[in-house]
Amino acid sequence: MKARIDVILKDGVLDPQGKAIHQALRHLGFEKVREVRQGKVIEIDLDETDKNRALSGLKTMSEKLLANQVIENYRITLQD
Amino acid sequence: MKARIDVILKDGVLDPQGKAIHQALRHLGFEKVREVRQGKVIEIDLDETDKNRALSGLKTMSEKLLANQVIENYRITLQD
Repeated sequence: MKARIDVILKDGVLDPQGKAIHQALRHLGFEKVREVRQGKVIEIDLDETDKNRALSGLKTMSEKLLANQVIENYRITLQD
Repeated sequence: MKARIDVILKDGVLDPQGKAIHQALRHLGFEKVREVRQGKVIEIDLDETDKNRALSGLKTMSEKLLANQVIENYRITLQD
């Protein structure tokens, strides 16, 4: 089973990478960009067929290792 | 209109961050993880209501700035 975990800075937390991309896009002429946030995406291939067990494992991985919950939110999506 | 762009290393391109996460997960006892790839996710808020114009702009942004197409693939998802 494949899954993806998005780890994105919480609203209100300064995102210098996002700001840099925003500025670069403006310099390239993309005036219609209102806001940019950059985060990480982690794609995981799991040897697991049970959806609930997969989700529970992915939640533990996110909270123990992948996301710093003080400043980041995570979002798990199962792909098949 | 909000959109997300995932930028992931192409298959076959070495992904040291993904490997490091994989090892760390194994050390934490997650034996069922087969593979891990890490990439970037860029969330963009666009002042644009036309889907086709939005998609075409996002494609240009990805190819000009966000993804290095020699080693990375990108995937655009419109969110509303």
